[in-house]
Amino acid sequence: MLTRMSSLFLRTLREDPADAEVPSHKLLVRAGYVRRVAPGVYSWLPLGLKVLRNIERVVREEMDAIGAQEIQFPALLPREPYEATNRWTEYGPNLFRLRDRKGNDYLLGPTHEELFTLAVKGEYSSYKDYPVILYQIQAKYRDEERPRAGILRGREFLMKDSYSFDLSDEGLAESYARHRAAYIRIFDRLGLRYVIVSATSGAMGGSASEEFLAESETGEDTYVRSTESGYAANVEAVVTPAPPTQPFEDKAPAQVHHTPDTPTIEALVAFLNGAGLGREFTAADTLKNVMVKIRQPGSTDWELLGVGVPGDREVDLKRLEASLAPAEVALLEEADFTANPFLVKGYIGPGALAANGVRYLVDPRIVPGTAWVTGADKPDHHVVDLVVGRDFTPDGTIEAAEVRDGDPSPDGHGTLEAARGIEIGHIFQLGRKYADAFALDALGPDAKPVRITMGSYGIGVSRLVAAIAEQSHDELGLVWPRAVAPFDVHVVIAGKNEEIIAGGEQLARELDAAGLRVLLDDRAASPGVKFADAELIGVPTIVVVGRGLANGLIEVKDRATGERVEVARDAAVAHLTRECGTVF
Amino acid sequence: MLTRMSSLFLRTLREDPADAEVPSHKLLVRAGYVRRVAPGVYSWLPLGLKVLRNIERVVREEMDAIGAQEIQFPALLPREPYEATNRWTEYGPNLFRLRDRKGNDYLLGPTHEELFTLAVKGEYSSYKDYPVILYQIQAKYRDEERPRAGILRGREFLMKDSYSFDLSDEGLAESYARHRAAYIRIFDRLGLRYVIVSATSGAMGGSASEEFLAESETGEDTYVRSTESGYAANVEAVVTPAPPTQPFEDKAPAQVHHTPDTPTIEALVAFLNGAGLGREFTAADTLKNVMVKIRQPGSTDWELLGVGVPGDREVDLKRLEASLAPAEVALLEEADFTANPFLVKGYIGPGALAANGVRYLVDPRIVPGTAWVTGADKPDHHVVDLVVGRDFTPDGTIEAAEVRDGDPSPDGHGTLEAARGIEIGHIFQLGRKYADAFALDALGPDAKPVRITMGSYGIGVSRLVAAIAEQSHDELGLVWPRAVAPFDVHVVIAGKNEEIIAGGEQLARELDAAGLRVLLDDRAASPGVKFADAELIGVPTIVVVGRGLANGLIEVKDRATGERVEVARDAAVAHLTRECGTVF
Repeated sequence: MLTRMSSLFLRTLREDPADAEVPSHKLLVRAGYVRRVAPGVYSWLPLGLKVLRNIERVVREEMDAIGAQEIQFPALLPREPYEATNRWTEYGPNLFRLRDRKGNDYLLGPTHEELFTLAVKGEYSSYKDYPVILYQIQAKYRDEERPRAGILRGREFLMKDSYSFDLSDEGLAESYARHRAAYIRIFDRLGLRYVIVSATSGAMGGSASEEFLAESETGEDTYVRSTESGYAANVEAVVTPAPPTQPFEDKAPAQVHHTPDTPTIEALVAFLNGAGLGREFTAADTLKNVMVKIRQPGSTDWELLGVGVPGDREVDLKRLEASLAPAEVALLEEADFTANPFLVKGYIGPGALAANGVRYLVDPRIVPGTAWVTGADKPDHHVVDLVVGRDFTPDGTIEAAEVRDGDPSPDGHGTLEAARGIEIGHIFQLGRKYADAFALDALGPDAKPVRITMGSYGIGVSRLVAAIAEQSHDELGLVWPRAVAPFDVHVVIAGKNEEIIAGGEQLARELDAAGLRVLLDDRAASPGVKFADAELIGVPTIVVVGRGLANGLIEVKDRATGERVEVARDAAVAHLTRECGTVF
Repeated sequence: MLTRMSSLFLRTLREDPADAEVPSHKLLVRAGYVRRVAPGVYSWLPLGLKVLRNIERVVREEMDAIGAQEIQFPALLPREPYEATNRWTEYGPNLFRLRDRKGNDYLLGPTHEELFTLAVKGEYSSYKDYPVILYQIQAKYRDEERPRAGILRGREFLMKDSYSFDLSDEGLAESYARHRAAYIRIFDRLGLRYVIVSATSGAMGGSASEEFLAESETGEDTYVRSTESGYAANVEAVVTPAPPTQPFEDKAPAQVHHTPDTPTIEALVAFLNGAGLGREFTAADTLKNVMVKIRQPGSTDWELLGVGVPGDREVDLKRLEASLAPAEVALLEEADFTANPFLVKGYIGPGALAANGVRYLVDPRIVPGTAWVTGADKPDHHVVDLVVGRDFTPDGTIEAAEVRDGDPSPDGHGTLEAARGIEIGHIFQLGRKYADAFALDALGPDAKPVRITMGSYGIGVSRLVAAIAEQSHDELGLVWPRAVAPFDVHVVIAGKNEEIIAGGEQLARELDAAGLRVLLDDRAASPGVKFADAELIGVPTIVVVGRGLANGLIEVKDRATGERVEVARDAAVAHLTRECGTVF
């Protein structure tokens, strides 16, 4: 393939677009890969479409390699299947909804679990039909509140979504493992630096789940990683290591103290340290009890729940919600306190909760034998040396406390540190949620129905273009990995004399004939403009045909390293075929 | 590629779907190529997607070959550009409209003239940038009132749309010619029988326009063709050959007759033939004057127009509208007759129209020297022998009369006959409509702006799957042309003994290794079921590995002709590579 810049539908820009904040957005617009049509809605110009298609190809090859079968659903979907799973409502304002001329409700598919489930139910009936993995690569729609960063978080975007259908949990685990391996191959081939983090399931509901995050400071997703091991996890998925339990014998007896005006931890610690108790207290010695109410799916009743965390940590609402999912969580309102007068604001303790049958879950650090300062269930009073297992017994533990830099890594190696990434893939053992919703059963060998279990696996194909650009650029422009680059080699004709022009044309034709994908800058522009555009566009290998040609030499520049070598014109095709031989 | 039916996501159906009327719809559903999701909205199962992709590939190759550059616009589009061209309103209920969470109006793109025009305006500025041809292959949306025939007329469908941008009319004609040639190559490669018909532009507004219609009795489009020549045209585009003018000398003088109770042509002819005028009259001797009113675009005023056609023909409203486009046409209301008392219903003649300044256009057959019976502008009176050019002079001619089987072909060869087809392509010289709407100018060599002129060219990619199926099937199932078939060869293992199974597997592997796309029926089903499925699915070459294998023979069947040959197993790969060598 030989593409001439003189006729390519491409105009590079010298200025960053006004609305761009992250490097990938700036560069993909400046280098003429994408153009904005509306908030979060972009067009793909020729260079951008080539990169997108290259990524699609890699994804497709690896999906096919695990036996996944490609199909294609419409993007315009009827309401009914999404009503059956309640997602028509649950998606809230994130869903693009519309009506047809007859007044029937439709949506633009944000993800296709319902359709895939119904498709399998439509075709398959026997256990002999399973397992099966289906996928599609298709435009998806989500009405994001804040579309941002160009194609990084768009409202129309290209996604690969696949779904596995298995007869058993073991089968699902196997399908999940095959996807995980395929994703590793895909992201490796695309030259990405990424981590695989344990993830909670979010709104999807289910069990095992991992996210693939491209490491990037501009990423929206926060995760934690160990300073020493390969451990990485979503904050919601961090499991707090429990310290050893302690003996009760050496613990002082619990004592209630009058602690006036100490509704906050700070005030309480200051008071205690001034009360002459013979030792120094910190916030970590206090036990903070946060009251919430929860509602189970399908229920109309709210239930009170006490959550106890060390006083030096806040409750992380996302972690709390993830721990309690699928139940809904809300903070207490004034009416709740009025209805439950045993809850003494600022002085709530385990005692009143137990006495009134309120469930009480504590942070895993609050192990038997540890002694705490906590509320004494009456105004201006706290209890000191309340010992777990002696003076109170929680109903269980919960991951609700914030995770902080320096916390020990759950795998026992090193400490945690926060990092940011771009979610590029998500693999997820859905389980039977959708199979239950549509009664997807296989007739088993014993003629009894077997409920199918599903996995759901996504890759943000268009987002990958931006994620790769985030990781692979410099101050001059984009630097594409070979597997996704729009061309293998960018030939710059640097000179206006006929010999140089003819020489550049000839070399480009020879490289094309050798099977390389060649971009030839045959424009009348100055060499300076051409070099700047070549750096900006980011083809991995830049060949300069200029004055050296008179001496039988051309220059080959590696875009990533900046390294330049002079190569004999006669050896150029062999050299370049070897250096940047197409990966296709 | 080797695909096993034992794991392929495919279940064929024995029964036609209840909602299917045309063969392609029945067969594509029965053979497991597509599934309905909502009215006019379909999913592509693995076999269907393969055929669709094969068609896409042919289209893409031929578009690339004429230098067209592929880009991709979103399907979700903001209202503003379509407001600028008034298409937001003009599309009426055919447009899928929706609002985002902020209340902004969006639409699902039915066609992308606006976006392409804006894209070129965004990137290009100089005359040196032109010409350019851009295209995309993308899902399009139209809220059809009556989606029908499966994927033949859907509401979400795949289309290739391209647009040419030229500096001059000559450039546009050249871009148009290149598209025309590319379309011929595409449809030839796809093995279609089609005609290219002159077309009027319909709602798009513009000049030269041709449609590519796949010949099909189930097609929605009517066209006429010559019984003797290659002439074919949309009914709207048929140009009526004018007969020779006649001398006035031998014509009798015009005479007004009292013709009571003759408001219809039939009544009039019967009356005349009973009036003793010495000759026989037919409806073809009468001149029927139909009154309409027209309104020019942008105007608020309606203008009266008289249309004269031979009394044996009806006015074809579609032809009339096409002739008067872009003006709007309406029939007269009672109020119009009241306001214009010179219009005597049932007895309108050229006289009153001329006397009252009403424009009067006649069928091309109404040439100078011909004599007519027509209205005398007073109740119950007609005039006989009113001669064109002697007694009245029309303001011009108009193509408004119906076209009938047996009419002479406009090219002078043979007569016309009506036929039906499926519109598979449309090429169209748009002109400057969209360039005017968005002020798309190039700076000319003299620094003066040059308004760009555009062409618009469409191919219904998903519709082609159905159009090919309409033309290529028999009572047993689909019969794919090689270029679009989902596989090159369908290997049927016809037998349950181990040698036959192993032999089939081995042959399939060898064919795969030889580069063929192989579908292997390795299911446990009976040979009868397998043969029926093979006929239904329609892969061009079916190979049966059965009992003959013991004698070193396999059977090769041509799906289209039904011809069977026995081939030595040892020669099978060579034979099949030659017979059904992949066209890719």
